[in-house]
Amino acid sequence: MSKIVVKFGGTSVANTERIINAAKLIKQKIDEGHTIAVVVSAMAGVTNDLIKKSKEIDQEFNAEEYDALLASGEQVTSTLFAGALRKLAIKSRSFQSWQLPIVTEGSHKNSRIVYVETSKLNASLDKGEVPVIPGFQGVTKDFRLSTLGRGGSDASAVALAKCINADYCEIYTDVEGVYTTNPDINPKAKKIDKISYEEMLEMATLGAKVMQSNSVQQAMMNDVEIHVRSTFSNKEGTQITNDQKISYDKVITGVAYSKDDAKITLQGVEDRPGIAASIFQPLYENNISVDMIVQNISSDHKKTDVTFTIKREDLKKSVELIKNNKEIKCEKIDYDDKVSKVSIVGAGMITHPGVAYKMFNSLAKEKINIMVISTSEIKISVLINEEQIQKAVAAIHSAFDLD
Amino acid sequence: MSKIVVKFGGTSVANTERIINAAKLIKQKIDEGHTIAVVVSAMAGVTNDLIKKSKEIDQEFNAEEYDALLASGEQVTSTLFAGALRKLAIKSRSFQSWQLPIVTEGSHKNSRIVYVETSKLNASLDKGEVPVIPGFQGVTKDFRLSTLGRGGSDASAVALAKCINADYCEIYTDVEGVYTTNPDINPKAKKIDKISYEEMLEMATLGAKVMQSNSVQQAMMNDVEIHVRSTFSNKEGTQITNDQKISYDKVITGVAYSKDDAKITLQGVEDRPGIAASIFQPLYENNISVDMIVQNISSDHKKTDVTFTIKREDLKKSVELIKNNKEIKCEKIDYDDKVSKVSIVGAGMITHPGVAYKMFNSLAKEKINIMVISTSEIKISVLINEEQIQKAVAAIHSAFDLD
Repeated sequence: MSKIVVKFGGTSVANTERIINAAKLIKQKIDEGHTIAVVVSAMAGVTNDLIKKSKEIDQEFNAEEYDALLASGEQVTSTLFAGALRKLAIKSRSFQSWQLPIVTEGSHKNSRIVYVETSKLNASLDKGEVPVIPGFQGVTKDFRLSTLGRGGSDASAVALAKCINADYCEIYTDVEGVYTTNPDINPKAKKIDKISYEEMLEMATLGAKVMQSNSVQQAMMNDVEIHVRSTFSNKEGTQITNDQKISYDKVITGVAYSKDDAKITLQGVEDRPGIAASIFQPLYENNISVDMIVQNISSDHKKTDVTFTIKREDLKKSVELIKNNKEIKCEKIDYDDKVSKVSIVGAGMITHPGVAYKMFNSLAKEKINIMVISTSEIKISVLINEEQIQKAVAAIHSAFDLD
Repeated sequence: MSKIVVKFGGTSVANTERIINAAKLIKQKIDEGHTIAVVVSAMAGVTNDLIKKSKEIDQEFNAEEYDALLASGEQVTSTLFAGALRKLAIKSRSFQSWQLPIVTEGSHKNSRIVYVETSKLNASLDKGEVPVIPGFQGVTKDFRLSTLGRGGSDASAVALAKCINADYCEIYTDVEGVYTTNPDINPKAKKIDKISYEEMLEMATLGAKVMQSNSVQQAMMNDVEIHVRSTFSNKEGTQITNDQKISYDKVITGVAYSKDDAKITLQGVEDRPGIAASIFQPLYENNISVDMIVQNISSDHKKTDVTFTIKREDLKKSVELIKNNKEIKCEKIDYDDKVSKVSIVGAGMITHPGVAYKMFNSLAKEKINIMVISTSEIKISVLINEEQIQKAVAAIHSAFDLD
């Protein structure tokens, strides 16, 4: 008998029929003897419609009013969900964030939960009720509605699970879990049963289809176990948990990739202390995030090549910034916006030698050229021509026995 | 320079374009130097859509969740409206009912405002802001959302006008004001410039197109002057006010009628003390409201006829209740569901003799038979065949120089 926070995403509560189905899932868990609190997203499409309305009125719509506007979406779902549970003879009520309260800090549109007052929630759970909480929102110290930014309902569920000491947090969504790679580009992709928080974070784009990184990070920091599964299937999903609870029988856990990268190379840069800072400071100041960075040791200790990747949409601006940067002296600026990053991720690779070799070899066999390599403890990433991405993922996926 | 509470109905804020237009109306008033607080309804159609969703889940949807569900409608409008004002460079913010708070009592779905905490509102007005408040709602003492029943946004506006000591309350809607009769059945109907609360209440169905009776009653009790006007026209609307502020140059103010009446006559009822109570108690207990009641004095003081009218939809139930009522002994129960009530209303009639005669005479000329007559100080109502309603209204409207 567990205490579980169950969260339903927008597609799982897209209409009243689906809300009724989701309520039936909760009834099963209640019948099995579990104690449940529910967190809901806005019904699919509702948030986008509200954003559209705000933009029709003002492209720069006031952030405080925007938050109070968007918060209505989850409010609606929470009341309908509580009503659907009551229809199934389950005691339930909705708690709006200001009724508990769930207190947030930080700027509007992108707040973070700092405190959940649990007295009312615990009283409700003690009575055998299922409290239903709108995700994605809270109230500021000034008692104004605030929202949590993208994926915010997951963050609400994780915060709630921590505050009421839930055994785990179950995330119902429209995918069956986290896959070894994207099934759309590789039909041999397999669902991962267990994955560590760290691996999930390194999976980046693969993971993002399932949960936003900041929610995974919160879960990791508070050791909240997460079960991701689909509302539309009975299959067990993926557990995201502490790596000590996982036995690594595979060397790597998954093959991730991204498709919107661009690469910039500064050739023959004058090599002096502080040069890297000079290059990246203006990018940072312009809110451009840099992903991979590689600097070769210059043979004569006077000149070096620096390569880094950024989001494709930031390429033009980045090149401009570098050209206009008088602190950088280099022979040539080279750039390419037809590149993609392929990564292997796995906490198991730490104890297995030859992982990098195996990855590079599988790419070589397919005549795929590697432009840049970067590594971390549980991840190896390479930059390749974007046209070869599908072939590369398939080759690596097979090489590491993930098929 | 007045302090005004301005309320916009659902059609006046039906989409973002109309919200922008309504915001421009507020800007005009601000530019003229007025101090304004805004009350908004849900965008037209939104409340019905939410009710539909609740019924899809449960025909007997829980009242507390229903209120929190519906309250989201006005929340959305209030934030969009505040955003639209800011776009016009007017300082503004929304205040949800729980942020002030607006405290209600009574059952969910049909609460009434008992208290508005005005400290935040007054602070906002003092700063030169336009506070925007969602109508139709409040919070209970238990801090749950509650709604005010039909026409509730008008009630919010009136309560607010009273609590912040507004000079008057302006109701923007989709009609230009209160008419001497329904323009749809009589093209000679004219807009009334000023009408007293009492007359407005007696106008019943005519008035209901403009404002619900309970809001008018609240306005009367708190002496809140109301200006009703259309968002879609520049014309002055109708002022609903204290009768001392009106000079009655016409004998009557308007001709009202209703079309969903039915009449029941108990012939030869045993005439004894308490018989009226015996007849009407079971109707009251079954929530059937009785409108006109006429009892003739019996010539021999032993038997009498009692006639009364009810809503047409309650006819069958009412007849059953009377037939099954063993305390009533009568010779015959007669009923008719093809009747309509026509009323003349006017505070001016008190000082004018012959008003009743003039009304009856105008009907007689058109060969319209009067079934039942009932009178109050500022109203005379007659029951006629429903087919003659249009002819009757036209005849009376002309007879009293309203054309």
